[in-house]
Amino acid sequence: VDPQIAAGIRAVIDGKAKPPGSLGRIEDLALQLGMIRHPGEPRGDNAVLLVFAGDHGLVAEGVSQYPSAVTVAMVMTYLAGRATANAFATANDIDVRVIDIGVAAELPVHPKLIDAKVRMGTANAAREPAMTAEQAADALSRGYRIAVGEIKAGADIIALGEMGIGNTASSALVVHRLAPAPLDDCIGVGAGQDDAGMARKRATITKAAARSDATAPLDVLAEFGGLEIAGMAGAILGAASQRRPVIIDGFISSAAALLAIRLCPAARDYCVFAHRSAERGHDIVLHALDAKPLLDLGLRLGEGTGALLAVPLVRAAARMLTDVASLDDVLAGKI
Amino acid sequence: VDPQIAAGIRAVIDGKAKPPGSLGRIEDLALQLGMIRHPGEPRGDNAVLLVFAGDHGLVAEGVSQYPSAVTVAMVMTYLAGRATANAFATANDIDVRVIDIGVAAELPVHPKLIDAKVRMGTANAAREPAMTAEQAADALSRGYRIAVGEIKAGADIIALGEMGIGNTASSALVVHRLAPAPLDDCIGVGAGQDDAGMARKRATITKAAARSDATAPLDVLAEFGGLEIAGMAGAILGAASQRRPVIIDGFISSAAALLAIRLCPAARDYCVFAHRSAERGHDIVLHALDAKPLLDLGLRLGEGTGALLAVPLVRAAARMLTDVASLDDVLAGKI
Repeated sequence: VDPQIAAGIRAVIDGKAKPPGSLGRIEDLALQLGMIRHPGEPRGDNAVLLVFAGDHGLVAEGVSQYPSAVTVAMVMTYLAGRATANAFATANDIDVRVIDIGVAAELPVHPKLIDAKVRMGTANAAREPAMTAEQAADALSRGYRIAVGEIKAGADIIALGEMGIGNTASSALVVHRLAPAPLDDCIGVGAGQDDAGMARKRATITKAAARSDATAPLDVLAEFGGLEIAGMAGAILGAASQRRPVIIDGFISSAAALLAIRLCPAARDYCVFAHRSAERGHDIVLHALDAKPLLDLGLRLGEGTGALLAVPLVRAAARMLTDVASLDDVLAGKI
Repeated sequence: VDPQIAAGIRAVIDGKAKPPGSLGRIEDLALQLGMIRHPGEPRGDNAVLLVFAGDHGLVAEGVSQYPSAVTVAMVMTYLAGRATANAFATANDIDVRVIDIGVAAELPVHPKLIDAKVRMGTANAAREPAMTAEQAADALSRGYRIAVGEIKAGADIIALGEMGIGNTASSALVVHRLAPAPLDDCIGVGAGQDDAGMARKRATITKAAARSDATAPLDVLAEFGGLEIAGMAGAILGAASQRRPVIIDGFISSAAALLAIRLCPAARDYCVFAHRSAERGHDIVLHALDAKPLLDLGLRLGEGTGALLAVPLVRAAARMLTDVASLDDVLAGKI
């Protein structure tokens, strides 16, 4: 976005029928949305959540208390409309798309499932690269095209979510290399781990990190990444290319945002960070991206649940910019 | 609500297809909503914002940089759909009702304006009681009946807002007596004040406080209160009587909640505190009511803007409780 237009949009916001600054963070958000769409106006009615699902070879090392089969079970739950992401989306009139970008199982054909599978889950990154460079690029490209397609079909806002047993482990490695930050600070409990499980998770991630010294974004993605992380990073770049806001969820989505922004720094301007996750490591990504999330509700589920709860704030900020009268008009009795 | 039912509802929430506790504050909110509606189920589709408008005789002493005429101008702006409250409500499919409970002017008849006027603004509380005990009871009763009427017409959620030049001064007095808390800690800048204005505001409020040592809720309301504060307090009691959640906005709405809860402590169970206002004194009320608001966005506008932004969270929490499958069913392949 063009920094030159900020002052003009800020003046419009300050001139609205309210004390200047009295809408706090919503004014900052309105400014961001106004800059993204300038000289057009931001809209928020049509919001779409893209849930990217993928599995992780690291699960073979015991980084999660759940097996990869849970990824499949949750994909079926999204398709049935019975997961938390569906509930939050229904509550707030947001469409949900479920994308198989790399689930480690053949999924049944379903009218609501987008088949974008790159491979049957990643390889075990503790022993070998998670994917090839070609597969990494392919997953990015598929995410990019899906986001662009949704926007061309009318989406005003793209929200991101993911499902993938083991993906906090993969994200820890991505954040460690791209923030960068000490590896141990990037490792959290994910969906839940006891002490023995955490020790196993740490040892596995440390072993993976020792296998490669990659620091370039695409190399880090191929060595340690997840297919759903790649898909989300691609979707961020796709949304930015179409000049639409993209709402980032928690730790894993933020790792994808970090990847996208390291690939293309201008993508940062299009990212809205939804919430501060309770997952350890999230603050590291937020700090690395100079991001202050809108919500702090102790969420640590993923699925895009936090992103869904931020959609109403984005819609409100857009409407504030487009619909609210100026104070001058109100005081002059012109309303 | 019955504390005995909490454990059962918490068990349902813990059994949903997600790691226990992974939805943080939304789980607490779902518990509250479940308890409010037990043995029925919470709903959130139909949400209504009640904006109570009233004027303050204290304005004659210069407690605000704006004249009472701004209250009228803003009421007309709500009716025209051009205020921030309208923008936020439109963005999130929430109905808005504008209630004249005590604007100090004759307002034109308008199909969207509810005429519940008790008197033409309050008297100057620095010199005499703001209203009579009968008027205080009347304003409470009108607010109560309006909320009950909306619920009987189908509202699942009542959100509260207000407009009234001078009402942070009135609220400071109410909070000072009912929290209770030192007067000076309850006084903030409201819609904006320079140093001279703040000195004038403090002196006026101090003068009013010296006039009466009232501490009983209805006496405090009559001595220092506002008609919109009374109306909101009545609406809280009305929502509680119908077992519906009522979303409290910022400082002034919270002063009304404090009044309602001092009158009827059981009303506390029905209150959802939307956000932490930037207005000084709000934290005092929140602390007095053991309330932890959902949002912290630096808002200090009033109008119900913060309450409107919390409606989507209430809707999401309700849907989580009613729509999300159990983990047992997901793992057993029953979804």
